Amino acid sequence: MTGRTIGFVGLGAMGRGMAGSLLRAGHTVRVWNRSPEPVAAMVAEGAEAAGSLAEVFAADTVVSMLANDAAVERLLLDPALLAGAGATLHVNMATVSLALAERAEALHAEHGVGYVAAPVLGRPPVAAAGRLNILVAGAPELLERAEPLFAAMGERTWHFGESPRQANTVKISTNFLIACAIESMAEACSLAEAHGIRPTDLVDLLTGTLFPGPIHTGYGAMVAERRYEPAGFRLPLGLKDVGLALDAGAARNVPLPIGSVLRDAFLDALAHGDGDKDWAAVAEVARRRAGLPD
Amino acid sequence: MTGRTIGFVGLGAMGRGMAGSLLRAGHTVRVWNRSPEPVAAMVAEGAEAAGSLAEVFAADTVVSMLANDAAVERLLLDPALLAGAGATLHVNMATVSLALAERAEALHAEHGVGYVAAPVLGRPPVAAAGRLNILVAGAPELLERAEPLFAAMGERTWHFGESPRQANTVKISTNFLIACAIESMAEACSLAEAHGIRPTDLVDLLTGTLFPGPIHTGYGAMVAERRYEPAGFRLPLGLKDVGLALDAGAARNVPLPIGSVLRDAFLDALAHGDGDKDWAAVAEVARRRAGLPD
Amino acid sequence: MTGRTIGFVGLGAMGRGMAGSLLRAGHTVRVWNRSPEPVAAMVAEGAEAAGSLAEVFAADTVVSMLANDAAVERLLLDPALLAGAGATLHVNMATVSLALAERAEALHAEHGVGYVAAPVLGRPPVAAAGRLNILVAGAPELLERAEPLFAAMGERTWHFGESPRQANTVKISTNFLIACAIESMAEACSLAEAHGIRPTDLVDLLTGTLFPGPIHTGYGAMVAERRYEPAGFRLPLGLKDVGLALDAGAARNVPLPIGSVLRDAFLDALAHGDGDKDWAAVAEVARRRAGLPD
Amino acid sequence: MTGRTIGFVGLGAMGRGMAGSLLRAGHTVRVWNRSPEPVAAMVAEGAEAAGSLAEVFAADTVVSMLANDAAVERLLLDPALLAGAGATLHVNMATVSLALAERAEALHAEHGVGYVAAPVLGRPPVAAAGRLNILVAGAPELLERAEPLFAAMGERTWHFGESPRQANTVKISTNFLIACAIESMAEACSLAEAHGIRPTDLVDLLTGTLFPGPIHTGYGAMVAERRYEPAGFRLPLGLKDVGLALDAGAARNVPLPIGSVLRDAFLDALAHGDGDKDWAAVAEVARRRAGLPD
Repeated sequence: MTGRTIGFVGLGAMGRGMAGSLLRAGHTVRVWNRSPEPVAAMVAEGAEAAGSLAEVFAADTVVSMLANDAAVERLLLDPALLAGAGATLHVNMATVSLALAERAEALHAEHGVGYVAAPVLGRPPVAAAGRLNILVAGAPELLERAEPLFAAMGERTWHFGESPRQANTVKISTNFLIACAIESMAEACSLAEAHGIRPTDLVDLLTGTLFPGPIHTGYGAMVAERRYEPAGFRLPLGLKDVGLALDAGAARNVPLPIGSVLRDAFLDALAHGDGDKDWAAVAEVARRRAGLPD
Repeated sequence: MTGRTIGFVGLGAMGRGMAGSLLRAGHTVRVWNRSPEPVAAMVAEGAEAAGSLAEVFAADTVVSMLANDAAVERLLLDPALLAGAGATLHVNMATVSLALAERAEALHAEHGVGYVAAPVLGRPPVAAAGRLNILVAGAPELLERAEPLFAAMGERTWHFGESPRQANTVKISTNFLIACAIESMAEACSLAEAHGIRPTDLVDLLTGTLFPGPIHTGYGAMVAERRYEPAGFRLPLGLKDVGLALDAGAARNVPLPIGSVLRDAFLDALAHGDGDKDWAAVAEVARRRAGLPD
Repeated sequence: MTGRTIGFVGLGAMGRGMAGSLLRAGHTVRVWNRSPEPVAAMVAEGAEAAGSLAEVFAADTVVSMLANDAAVERLLLDPALLAGAGATLHVNMATVSLALAERAEALHAEHGVGYVAAPVLGRPPVAAAGRLNILVAGAPELLERAEPLFAAMGERTWHFGESPRQANTVKISTNFLIACAIESMAEACSLAEAHGIRPTDLVDLLTGTLFPGPIHTGYGAMVAERRYEPAGFRLPLGLKDVGLALDAGAARNVPLPIGSVLRDAFLDALAHGDGDKDWAAVAEVARRRAGLPD
Repeated sequence: MTGRTIGFVGLGAMGRGMAGSLLRAGHTVRVWNRSPEPVAAMVAEGAEAAGSLAEVFAADTVVSMLANDAAVERLLLDPALLAGAGATLHVNMATVSLALAERAEALHAEHGVGYVAAPVLGRPPVAAAGRLNILVAGAPELLERAEPLFAAMGERTWHFGESPRQANTVKISTNFLIACAIESMAEACSLAEAHGIRPTDLVDLLTGTLFPGPIHTGYGAMVAERRYEPAGFRLPLGLKDVGLALDAGAARNVPLPIGSVLRDAFLDALAHGDGDKDWAAVAEVARRRAGLPD
């Protein structure tokens, strides 16, 4: 399976690590990025620079890791690009809305390009280490073809169905649950603080017993210490992700009452100027509601 | 420190394990229980049977582990009992409301009996193994006296302040966070199911990556599999605990919006006859809201 | 029907007007009040002063208009008083919780004293004019006996069932709807203000077209003008009434999601020191959530 | 005043009445509609038929009354149409989103066509009678020019600012308040029903005392009687309008907690197949949450 040529679009903090993993696994990787510096850096590691997206889509398989719906729409949902593609498989690893996922599925189908969704869990260092968790959905034969790439980039591949958008739904659900964890700890920490208990003591208990995972540990400390900068994930992105969950619910008539609470809280946070802080800063809304000292 | 005589009130599933731990640590344990069978069982393990609560309160230190506010109020918040007590320390390990905690603090102070709160995390097998997590608050010198007992019953003592009710607040907060975790997974599982994704696949991902702890693992499986019987913790008790959190918030003007969502959801579950099921059955409310098949 | 002797308990702002109406209708009215001044004032209008509650309950019919659960409980839910009563009918016109209503029903039944509930809509001037709306529930024959009194005090009697507490439920529901109207106008006014629209312009439109009634008109103006003092009905009483609605819901497993929103908003208002203002000041919470200028 | 030529786009149930009012006021009215029958009917009343939208926009002033964003976008936000317009004023009377309102303002400004927004309150019979309430915003000199037209179509013109979108915001707020009134009555009726009180009795009290307006009277009866067909305003349109309010809030970081409750309730209603019923059918969600008999 080595020797395969992979087109790769999007060399952000995540994409660089992922493309590097593919290189290390012995693939030929032809990269494209909006700005040139990351391309040069990847070429120094052994990648080829693509002169255009069309060159990327001349490869057998294309992997893309773009930032959001807008970038995917603008760069990849291009009928001419897909019509002229030599690629028979596009693995879209971005976190996108279900509406975009559906348009992407339809457009690829129309042009006979195989399409699977494979959003990931993991921050840039995890991507660089090739230890991502990869959430995949699509036609089984396409996923089988993509599996060696997933194996190069991740430590585990999780399957969620034959419709690509199902993987996007799971990724959206995962981010929703992170937001739920933040908000619930924020409410509990405000309750504790109002009763004269140190929030850090509460979070130490929680993460030392019932909620040991990385989300509660990482965000719990941020909430308890009111440490929201530098932002790992900015608050407006958090609101956007909550919106993706609410939209995914609306698409199937699934109310998400905690999602509604989250949306209101994130708006409140933005209204108070916390848009440049980490989304854990939504905890300040809980504190403010309770009249706790600023 | 061995050789100390401990009065022990309340030999339910939790209390039996805890009294056993005290015995094994070399203490003389004088037990009292409403029904006689558990007393006999403990006597067989080496405990003394108290003829009355007054005899229990003749011991140096009293530990109580009763089921709820009503039992504590009826049995222990008895001015005559406290006025005649030889005990100079009462360690109340029950999960009680803050209103009751305050009355207990005041009544013990009035009668010169030291009082600390020490609710626990852990199910009966954990209690039997002496591996509870014990959440404590009270006067430091009293907590120091109680520490050998905590060491016998638990694997770790967590301190939350000098006012006993603070430990109760933390216990209430912990239960609130469990309920938040259940409801958030319920909403996410309904979203997944509505999009044709198996909830078990979602929960496997969550617990295999971001949310590895016992709460997400245990309740996640129950929610995903819709397995609510036999009940580990019945739904009306869940509603009661959510109410304790809301009341603790109201006592300090702390709104808990997710708490409000939980309250509404638990009422909905009771309205649909799920009162004998585990509180994880609140997940059926999320499914019903989304019109998922029964 | 004139010539009847009525015992009357509770000469607050409402009770004075109601007792006056009974006097004007030709009844003998024997009054009791905790403080003496209102008694003297009513005697000047022709009432008799009762030396004790027992004297009040020697009359054929007792009408009571006390401030809240606590006053009713302390003064009237007295087994000795009811056991010795000559009265065969007690008309309780206070706004009380359903829990108290049930205790009152049971205790009166136990002592063979007829009991009906008859809470009212209307402010003190309306009471003084004998133009209240009276919400009644109880045994039909008792309500028939009470009707001449209702006719003296009110402009219309509204019937809600044979169980006295049903009238209390309706009164609680009515107050709930007032709170809903306030909060919904508060949210709409914040939305308008954030878009550069004068809230007074919005409220003028609403009350000039779709929502012409006294609640929208009165509270709409207060919200739009941010005029919360002097308080017609203080914010903590508003929170209490929302709590009565939530409790009435919980008693029958009826979730009230807007009730939950209201509860959280009133707590937020109290947390920000607005406890001495009119309950319309809950609108400041909506403004604060949106980051509007203080 | 008479003699002016008005182009009119959109002869739905509302538009027909409004165009008729303009005719009766002595204006020349040149009408256009997607389907021909309403055009013929208006011509029979004295209107001119426009052969194209360009002919409509050759008139001095254009009034449009289209169904929704999509229709406005497709028909009127046409650069070529506006570039070639003789009209110097376009009065857009549709209920549209703020996002569309902003695009419309910008595009008209770009092409030098005056633009004001003038959405209305009132059903078709009110439009036919020329008694609408007209909510307007825009440049004062443009509104002054439009006022004779408003006077012909409505009984009152309400002013909300100089930016057209402000009138749309008020219209959206008004619909939001209608939805709040429906949901709050739905919750109160469920509470009443669960306590054995007839919802019609509660609604009669409400509309006979505190809430006398057309919204509470009309929707209150529908909710209390569970009469949701034929639909005056279909449930999915209600969800759309709630969404417009939430979006208007999000555009300025204004959380609308009741709006969130409404969104969740409307989704729940759609999930249960009530999409063809009147939006008052959201009341069935409140009944279902409480487990009331179907």
